[in-house]
Amino acid sequence: MRGRLYIALLHHPVLDREGRVITSSVTNADIHDIARSAKTYGVTRFFIVTPIADQADLVRTIVGHWTCGAGGSLNPSRREALEAVEVAGSLEGVVEAIAREESGPVNTVATGARLGGSCVSHGQLREILDNGNGTTLILFGTGWGLADEVIESSRYRLEAISGPGPYNHLSVRSAVAITLDRLARRKE
Amino acid sequence: MRGRLYIALLHHPVLDREGRVITSSVTNADIHDIARSAKTYGVTRFFIVTPIADQADLVRTIVGHWTCGAGGSLNPSRREALEAVEVAGSLEGVVEAIAREESGPVNTVATGARLGGSCVSHGQLREILDNGNGTTLILFGTGWGLADEVIESSRYRLEAISGPGPYNHLSVRSAVAITLDRLARRKE
Repeated sequence: MRGRLYIALLHHPVLDREGRVITSSVTNADIHDIARSAKTYGVTRFFIVTPIADQADLVRTIVGHWTCGAGGSLNPSRREALEAVEVAGSLEGVVEAIAREESGPVNTVATGARLGGSCVSHGQLREILDNGNGTTLILFGTGWGLADEVIESSRYRLEAISGPGPYNHLSVRSAVAITLDRLARRKE
Repeated sequence: MRGRLYIALLHHPVLDREGRVITSSVTNADIHDIARSAKTYGVTRFFIVTPIADQADLVRTIVGHWTCGAGGSLNPSRREALEAVEVAGSLEGVVEAIAREESGPVNTVATGARLGGSCVSHGQLREILDNGNGTTLILFGTGWGLADEVIESSRYRLEAISGPGPYNHLSVRSAVAITLDRLARRKE
């Protein structure tokens, strides 16, 4: 049986262009695009993580517009996607929320364009999803990527997405879409 | 030898939610996200197609900021991506621009979430890219997708991207990212 899959988009702790740990701002396109990708690929819930109360309120207002407000009547498919969005104040809060609903461990997976060292491939992560114990939570970083403390405390690191050349500056929206598509892929 | 790959994002002729042919507005996130995906996957050029002169000027201003202006100094990787962006007034203009630079036919490929009928798979399109004659131009529609006239006049139709369920409402930014990743994929 396939384990359930969760994703989280972190706005803290993430890096800025100089490698300092910061809190980034929430981006409207991230909410919509990632919610739609998550819905397409059967993700159980998409957590948006920010420790800033005003930013969390902003996300709730946007999501509410599309799930309970005028947006949802106008565009039911957008409502369907945004219904799976949940706001959390920290990564620990996300793990606790999942643990309350699921049995077994919550296996966190760090992602990033510059991840090296001992990484699992997308194919290996697919097998972990299909056969592993517990639930899987994939972490995506905004800004210049997840802070070291998140990567180091994660159960797995996922290999970076790369094309034929050295350029590795996808938007996080595109990276989430590609990651979920690769994990859903049946072997050709 | 692998044929060169071009992509175009059409703002006309595309459909609105009621299936009428319209001209949609240019979206800043489309320009950036798709340019970054195109650069990652070795696309030769990314055409943004709009018949509205003001919208074309807006795209040139945004691209100029990141390629010749302050944005490029601040963020060289963004400059690198946006250097491959070109504005065109129509799909015919795009095909003519490519034909001036390339030998052989320009094979157009229509995409869409609701494409049916005789479609090529991503694997088949990869083989066409690797072994086919001429260059390939993949067309993506904004709004509710490409108008019928574009689909009917295209050389190929690409199978719709689908996940495990029936939901098929990815953003065009995500659809481009997934499509390019699938075409670049080596067989596992």
